[in-house]
Amino acid sequence: MERPRAEELLGTLDGWDLQGDRLHRHFRFRDFAGAMRFVNAIAELAEQEGHHPDFSLHGWNLLDVTTSTHAIGGLSENDFILAGKIDRLPREAPPEGR
Amino acid sequence: MERPRAEELLGTLDGWDLQGDRLHRHFRFRDFAGAMRFVNAIAELAEQEGHHPDFSLHGWNLLDVTTSTHAIGGLSENDFILAGKIDRLPREAPPEGR
Repeated sequence: MERPRAEELLGTLDGWDLQGDRLHRHFRFRDFAGAMRFVNAIAELAEQEGHHPDFSLHGWNLLDVTTSTHAIGGLSENDFILAGKIDRLPREAPPEGR
Repeated sequence: MERPRAEELLGTLDGWDLQGDRLHRHFRFRDFAGAMRFVNAIAELAEQEGHHPDFSLHGWNLLDVTTSTHAIGGLSENDFILAGKIDRLPREAPPEGR
């Protein structure tokens, strides 16, 4: 996908950024259990979509999710669709200011 | 923890390595669902132990687990105990040669 098109699609999302040829978002949770519930919701979505993002859970409540399309070695519209669906999953955010 | 002591304790584990002041192991699974089952088993163990490793699931079937002890900014015996318990969790490995 050409960079201008990727940046156009990025504008449809909330909180994601481009990291090279990957789409990335950082999440912070109240606690480890809440982070794990969100990881499992992403995993269920990924199986439904047949498209699996990478994720890293660290510092017990911080999650980084990245997606790209292996078959084309870069971003496809599927990545932006997956990101939009991840944004619509229920999520327990930490209280403001934490 | 002094490096010689860390290396001595490392000898009690299977497949782990030292990455700076962190203890690390790489796992490979047959599929994404099997990787997620193992991630959830680690998460349950982590809550029981009150000690939470970091993990990264990538390429749909590859998992990297790292642990260190935040309170001391390095490795403690708790990390080696957690690693040993992770090794004893049920795990669906990929067929040989894959």
